Amino acid sequence: MTDLRRDGSAALEWAARYLERVSELPVLAQVKPGEIRSRLPAEAPEHPEPFDAVLRDLDEILLPGVTHWQHPRYFAYFATTASEPAVLAELLAAALNSVAILWRTAPAATELEAVVLEWTARLLGLPEGWHGHIEDTASTSTLAALMAARESSGRDLVVCSEEAHSSVEKDARLLGMRLHKVPCDEQFRVRTDALGDLGEAAAVVATVGTTASTSVDPVPEIADACERAGAWLHVDAAYAGAAMVCPEHRWAFAGVERADSLVVNAHKWMLTPNDCSLLWTRRPEDFRRAFSLIPEYLRTPDAEDALSLSEYGPALGRRFRALKLWAVLRCHGRSGLQEHIRRGIGLAAMFERWIAEEAGWELCAPRPFSVVCFRLQGADERNRELLMRVNASGEIFISHAVLNARYVLRLAVRGRGRQRGELARP
Amino acid sequence: MTDLRRDGSAALEWAARYLERVSELPVLAQVKPGEIRSRLPAEAPEHPEPFDAVLRDLDEILLPGVTHWQHPRYFAYFATTASEPAVLAELLAAALNSVAILWRTAPAATELEAVVLEWTARLLGLPEGWHGHIEDTASTSTLAALMAARESSGRDLVVCSEEAHSSVEKDARLLGMRLHKVPCDEQFRVRTDALGDLGEAAAVVATVGTTASTSVDPVPEIADACERAGAWLHVDAAYAGAAMVCPEHRWAFAGVERADSLVVNAHKWMLTPNDCSLLWTRRPEDFRRAFSLIPEYLRTPDAEDALSLSEYGPALGRRFRALKLWAVLRCHGRSGLQEHIRRGIGLAAMFERWIAEEAGWELCAPRPFSVVCFRLQGADERNRELLMRVNASGEIFISHAVLNARYVLRLAVRGRGRQRGELARP
Repeated sequence: MTDLRRDGSAALEWAARYLERVSELPVLAQVKPGEIRSRLPAEAPEHPEPFDAVLRDLDEILLPGVTHWQHPRYFAYFATTASEPAVLAELLAAALNSVAILWRTAPAATELEAVVLEWTARLLGLPEGWHGHIEDTASTSTLAALMAARESSGRDLVVCSEEAHSSVEKDARLLGMRLHKVPCDEQFRVRTDALGDLGEAAAVVATVGTTASTSVDPVPEIADACERAGAWLHVDAAYAGAAMVCPEHRWAFAGVERADSLVVNAHKWMLTPNDCSLLWTRRPEDFRRAFSLIPEYLRTPDAEDALSLSEYGPALGRRFRALKLWAVLRCHGRSGLQEHIRRGIGLAAMFERWIAEEAGWELCAPRPFSVVCFRLQGADERNRELLMRVNASGEIFISHAVLNARYVLRLAVRGRGRQRGELARP
Repeated sequence: MTDLRRDGSAALEWAARYLERVSELPVLAQVKPGEIRSRLPAEAPEHPEPFDAVLRDLDEILLPGVTHWQHPRYFAYFATTASEPAVLAELLAAALNSVAILWRTAPAATELEAVVLEWTARLLGLPEGWHGHIEDTASTSTLAALMAARESSGRDLVVCSEEAHSSVEKDARLLGMRLHKVPCDEQFRVRTDALGDLGEAAAVVATVGTTASTSVDPVPEIADACERAGAWLHVDAAYAGAAMVCPEHRWAFAGVERADSLVVNAHKWMLTPNDCSLLWTRRPEDFRRAFSLIPEYLRTPDAEDALSLSEYGPALGRRFRALKLWAVLRCHGRSGLQEHIRRGIGLAAMFERWIAEEAGWELCAPRPFSVVCFRLQGADERNRELLMRVNASGEIFISHAVLNARYVLRLAVRGRGRQRGELARP
């Protein structure tokens, strides 16, 4: 039988050693599709095995198939970091196994979630009084926001830019809503002169920190247009929103205070492991009307019902995700989060300068945050080959985007721990 | 700074002691709405605090607001258990922080997920070759299934029984689908003679183990009707599906092998902490067509794309949830899971006999699994008061349902560890 103390010590030691040695492992898993699967047995065991066997197979079978998101040279997509307080909080949350289907089934999880969302709203300089809760991913947060917009407006059109995240399109499809993608200007910001008539729009999704280039939509102008048309303004700052913790970066978030809803993923740039997508709204009653549905077997006194966060989103069962965000806010503090953001942006700025100064290379987009878009001058093919080569080396992992119809490389810095030293100019 | 070894040892000791002493704590949190919140500060700290402070406040501030799902006398809703191997796997998953947006970003997580879903399908006696993946909750699993049904059929009607879970209605609302609720017979099973014309139905949701009484819909007849009408059959066995691990309980699952999709929550009766909802389908291409949406920045070679599980459901970012299910299957084995189910059903049967033999009490529904519906004879009010009184005592936690327009009490047994001894007849 698995013993929490004995086997837990081994698991903890595994985790600690993993984080110590991760920089020595190939960052991108060097396996072919199907290779890991082929090493696993076809059936579950008949009888219990010791937990040691799980740890052994984690090392021997699974580890070669792990792409290391915790690796200091992981620079692909959005570089994320799961910091120690949050990792330990996930252990505690699993041991408690609180399931917040209703307030009464998890009062601490429910109220802590509301409180840490208020704490984070203050850290980010958001208006007082917004209602916040946690969803698993930005896909779900945006789904919830668009649902609230659809239900409150009776309209079915969603408007976003060509550079908006693919989840907007996926969510619109789920909700049976039409999607209109608006072209961008040369800096990958939505062209507000091309927004068109928003009279039929249920919602406009503005992005602060797009996925390809981290461009910033002109939110104040979009907010004006939404206000005129009576459309819901949802701001997707899933990646960049964390930068609001630093006053000097708040210029990029002008107008966000006018949003009807806002998503910021703590699991992207806020030291929290997946999943922890923060969703705020100044229209909580519209969420509640869209999602509230209480069958008899879940009825409790009214005062309790009002607090059940399952009434503000798609899922009924909710994990104690607030615990890890609480641990992050406590153990890093405002100063620690600011330092983390500043280091990430500083390192990205440094890399950006290297590219600017290096003959034969070019920058491909403004760099407001910690992602640099760049390329080798010349054909797309050269860049594609370079990407394949560096990723196949296992030394670093970067990804790509297509901007202005050109293939460009993306380097996303997270800026914690050893990543500083790993960005040494060759 | 939080140290994974030092602070991790303290967190582990906290978790181990918590599970040792949980039976001494009031099972239902004895706090009023707002009480926990009022004890928490209004702002995050400016500077980092030690992890010890988090553990201290977890004890002093949060614990009184925890309803203890791990308590041996938690008999409400569906009694779940997070077992040790899975708790430790959550620590490992958080330390790895694999994010399976694409196969290449988490080959091990992706392929292990496919493999453990195959293992579980075999344990449950499901047909070979079904495609499986993990969603957070049954709400999301059913959402994904209904979306696939809507997109593949072009129809927008969902049919389920009055006793189906509220998530079916919530999901239909999200998807903009119409819902038809069919009445049940005296044993709370859908009346197949009342299904009506399914010619417009995209999907029928059959439930094996309804939430109120754990009744079993006649799946073979529903499957016949679906086949005739070309409707998608989705089976919701979120709670009861785990019982399929025991051949002697498979009678209740006749016809499930004909489903187009099936949801079983490992986090309900399969020793796994939230969230781990297992979704199988024999029509994976319909899911993929409904959900696949690959923007340029996520493109990878075709062979890899085919394996990305984010193409089979709403979320793009996916946690390494397979790790905890793998740990459960390894460390309990088929025999351990069977023992767990048999003990739960055996204890429920024992309690059922006590009620049957006790003057003044009555049973209110058949008891196919581990949930007993019962009541004091006489007015609803007597039962309501009794429920309030026992839950307020903090000694046990049970919930209620309304069956045949009468208020009934529900006792849900999980059957692990000390729960056996806690069901002592007074």
